Amino acid sequence: MNNKGLLMIISGFSGAGKGTVVNRLLDKYGDFYALSISATTRSPREGEVHGREYFFKTREEFESMISNDELIEYARYVDNFYGTPKDYVEEKLNEGCNVILEIEIQGALKVKKIFPEAVLIFLFPPTVDELEKRLKNRGTETDQVITERMSRACKEIESAYDYDYIVINDDVEECTDAIHGMINAEKLKVSRQKDFIDKIRKDLVGHYC
Amino acid sequence: MNNKGLLMIISGFSGAGKGTVVNRLLDKYGDFYALSISATTRSPREGEVHGREYFFKTREEFESMISNDELIEYARYVDNFYGTPKDYVEEKLNEGCNVILEIEIQGALKVKKIFPEAVLIFLFPPTVDELEKRLKNRGTETDQVITERMSRACKEIESAYDYDYIVINDDVEECTDAIHGMINAEKLKVSRQKDFIDKIRKDLVGHYC
Repeated sequence: MNNKGLLMIISGFSGAGKGTVVNRLLDKYGDFYALSISATTRSPREGEVHGREYFFKTREEFESMISNDELIEYARYVDNFYGTPKDYVEEKLNEGCNVILEIEIQGALKVKKIFPEAVLIFLFPPTVDELEKRLKNRGTETDQVITERMSRACKEIESAYDYDYIVINDDVEECTDAIHGMINAEKLKVSRQKDFIDKIRKDLVGHYC
Repeated sequence: MNNKGLLMIISGFSGAGKGTVVNRLLDKYGDFYALSISATTRSPREGEVHGREYFFKTREEFESMISNDELIEYARYVDNFYGTPKDYVEEKLNEGCNVILEIEIQGALKVKKIFPEAVLIFLFPPTVDELEKRLKNRGTETDQVITERMSRACKEIESAYDYDYIVINDDVEECTDAIHGMINAEKLKVSRQKDFIDKIRKDLVGHYC
């Protein structure tokens, strides 16, 4: 069996519940998963720890990571850069962990081009009404922000067709287990198990052909 | 969600344990699966029931099924024909059952050409030694038969690379659950859930774009 970890990307609309599901995966299945930590040029907020929430970088450090090809993908939001450091991801994959990238859709599609073997999962709310309800229930978003998020979802859904799997976050536990099932199934794909088939083939041909 | 059943094919070497695993799937997950029943021109053995083990057909009936395109695949062994009736499979798929075809490798690859959405699963023994041990432990096979089966496995493994998934039958319970996980994951593939995405897209576009 091939023991290298899988690179998996979880995306979805704001309000779909990505954070909750990712935390549940990490809690429930321990070392089977590792969360990729992004690098950013924004300043740490209170309580944030370098190497836990983010790798905090100066603008110069970040630009040098870009030019040295040390990032799998990166993007700029307002005045700050955010990116996925290649080193950390590869280290975890080699340890056999399945690395979760919780990134937005444009970044996800860029990663798929570089790592076609990555598994792209799009998290859906059960209905559009439910999505709006969840955003409202947070109680922290103004009506304008909610409208902006719903309108962003309108654009984002066009890219859902380029993902590998969808998963519907109706119940967190079921959703977590569905993702875990996908990863276990992916690992048994023939395209990922050629070494195992080769080994059995070699043993057969050596003795019985 | 798309509720139509999946067509799934389970193949593997003689001695890999296909029958045991298929029975366990049917026992454990009830109506989630249905086993496809083959048509054959061979005579019923004692205890075999028409419509349970096989659909027993005369040579003329079988040939008319071939010419009316009523079989998904068929093959001839020695003097008898065996084939998979299309009607029964489509009826079960429409009921939402995942239909299991336990067929040999050439038949499986033919089915994949006609139904590219079919899921092909190749059941492996953990090792070649274990496969030989299982064949010997049956106690019913002569040394010559065992050698013939191992030698057939040599040829069959070349086609394993054309399957979608492998599963290793080390422990029947784990193997059964691995297959069940694959089918659940397959159902969440974007290619099978376009209707769900279309629905959410329509609701978003109607209200927020």
